[in-house]
Amino acid sequence: MLLCPHTFILLASLSIDMFLQPADMLLKLGTEIFKAQGLTQEKAKFVAETLVEASLTGHDSHGVQYYVTYSDRIKGGHIQVDAEPRIVQETATTALIDGRWAPGQVTAKYLVEAAVRKAKENMVSAIGAFNCNHIGRIGFYTDWAARQGIIALMFVNVGTPSVSVFGGLGKFFGTNPLSVAVPTGETEPFLTDYATSVVADGKLSVARAKNAKIPTHWARDSDNNPTDDPFAVKEGGWLLPFGLYKGYCLQLVSELLGAVLTGSRTGPNPNRIPPSANGVFAIAINPEAFVGLDNFKRNTDQLIAQVKAVEPEPGNKVLIPGEPEWETKEKRMKEGIPLPEEIWDSIVKLAKELGLDQDSR
Amino acid sequence: MLLCPHTFILLASLSIDMFLQPADMLLKLGTEIFKAQGLTQEKAKFVAETLVEASLTGHDSHGVQYYVTYSDRIKGGHIQVDAEPRIVQETATTALIDGRWAPGQVTAKYLVEAAVRKAKENMVSAIGAFNCNHIGRIGFYTDWAARQGIIALMFVNVGTPSVSVFGGLGKFFGTNPLSVAVPTGETEPFLTDYATSVVADGKLSVARAKNAKIPTHWARDSDNNPTDDPFAVKEGGWLLPFGLYKGYCLQLVSELLGAVLTGSRTGPNPNRIPPSANGVFAIAINPEAFVGLDNFKRNTDQLIAQVKAVEPEPGNKVLIPGEPEWETKEKRMKEGIPLPEEIWDSIVKLAKELGLDQDSR
Repeated sequence: MLLCPHTFILLASLSIDMFLQPADMLLKLGTEIFKAQGLTQEKAKFVAETLVEASLTGHDSHGVQYYVTYSDRIKGGHIQVDAEPRIVQETATTALIDGRWAPGQVTAKYLVEAAVRKAKENMVSAIGAFNCNHIGRIGFYTDWAARQGIIALMFVNVGTPSVSVFGGLGKFFGTNPLSVAVPTGETEPFLTDYATSVVADGKLSVARAKNAKIPTHWARDSDNNPTDDPFAVKEGGWLLPFGLYKGYCLQLVSELLGAVLTGSRTGPNPNRIPPSANGVFAIAINPEAFVGLDNFKRNTDQLIAQVKAVEPEPGNKVLIPGEPEWETKEKRMKEGIPLPEEIWDSIVKLAKELGLDQDSR
Repeated sequence: MLLCPHTFILLASLSIDMFLQPADMLLKLGTEIFKAQGLTQEKAKFVAETLVEASLTGHDSHGVQYYVTYSDRIKGGHIQVDAEPRIVQETATTALIDGRWAPGQVTAKYLVEAAVRKAKENMVSAIGAFNCNHIGRIGFYTDWAARQGIIALMFVNVGTPSVSVFGGLGKFFGTNPLSVAVPTGETEPFLTDYATSVVADGKLSVARAKNAKIPTHWARDSDNNPTDDPFAVKEGGWLLPFGLYKGYCLQLVSELLGAVLTGSRTGPNPNRIPPSANGVFAIAINPEAFVGLDNFKRNTDQLIAQVKAVEPEPGNKVLIPGEPEWETKEKRMKEGIPLPEEIWDSIVKLAKELGLDQDSR
């Protein structure tokens, strides 16, 4: 096992602080963890990068805790470390990708790169993927596209049922997120990225870790009643779609585009095999076909400035989608990424199992 | 003035019943009303058809009451009855349309037909329109695309500010709707179509007409307080975005795609001139580039059947997006379209002003 000495030193020195871990150390560590399990340097680094970025931007539910989850899935045979996604059907503006159960991030990167390339060449594109593992935080990919000057929409179905349909009892769909990102001039890209449930599963984990109550409009317990218990969803309960029937409609849109259109597994999947599979669908739009990228950026900047100038409600702030993430990232780049002891311990344990605590050279 | 005798008879015989008007009579009457103001037979009938269809499907806020509103806008010079929308920039997969302030429905029809044609030829397309009047209920166009075997997404900005941004005070955006429709096999198309406010303006009109209270999470009054008064929004108050920050994100997406990308007027428009202008953006996707139309329809049918089989919450029903509209349409096709006396009177008054109560031949 080849261990980067710098990572080893960081791992050794930082394991004494259970709370704030520097992003660069976590990236190196994650890269080594995935390399040790057979991913190439490039793929291992990319998977780790998407997870560190989620942690940096405050999306802890999609962050470095997945070092352990993905490793379990590699061991379980659900993630094929050396599989290469491939296009099985293609036109100048579209592609359908068989992810071949490669690491989900590898498939999603392949997908968004194809989407941006085709949108640059032909102004608009639509790309789908099936046989795809969990791709992490989907805003990572739409944000990347926006930074290339391309507007991106992404719809993803999630194979683990945890959310009811509106007006119905019991978990049915996964958290089926969607994301839209657009290029800007003066700020980071405009980025919206959220689950179509009232909250993502991760918000429940956070509440459980803190032993906190949750608002009663988030979830139902196994007796179908509103609950303030964050454990209820784990014990036969479920999350509700956001915004009543309006969020439910989008839940279905993510399922129809992400899964039905791409030929991914759809509907409830009580067996959860493979775990958290994603059906992925992205649309990419080149502003050059419309007002042009420069105009689009300038007018988006202006709209953002107008929105930011709105007088806030007392006790509230007017935020631009993406802004909480930019702020959290800036803070965490300086201070480190806060990790609960339990999660850090599980990562250290994994690293040791993989022999990363020994200079094995 | 040429009056279709059948319309005349219907108008005369039905004006005694203020409450239920047959759809075919309303369509003929609307066609005559718009023809009398200079639209061609084809355009007049199409505009009337979209409005009758909104009334039939229960979207009274976008229904035949617009006979009067649009006529006012024609008189005011905001709707150019003989203008033809034209494409000002085009590729194999995209088009940017100058609506030239033609009747909004004429521009939207031109847009969705181009979107479907290009998606049939090149698998995916994206079309925008600026200088566009109010296009009516946007689900009309996505539903039409779905009936041609094409998946359609539509994002529209609305020029009349009535909704606040999340966390901010005062009206800023219009109700900025979005719609998604997909082809199905066994049922009418799956159709989602809604305002990004908690409710559309029309729901307030209905409450005002009934002198009913509204739920306090819908709106704020001019003193920034939650209100149950449906008149409050007319008197300096505003609607809230649906689903807290998640609906707010979509409000912005409709603004960015519908207005900023197409070069339509964006941001708040306190002068309301032109009234209720729409910036329109549609994406069309051909399922043949993915699982194929037949597979897509079959698997969508199966998903819909699974959702419909979910046990409902006591006192609730599990509905498929579009289903309430199919049910209402069936009922209203049989029973007629209920119109408040005030609205029917204003239509009759308009028809008389236009000389449609006289056989002038």
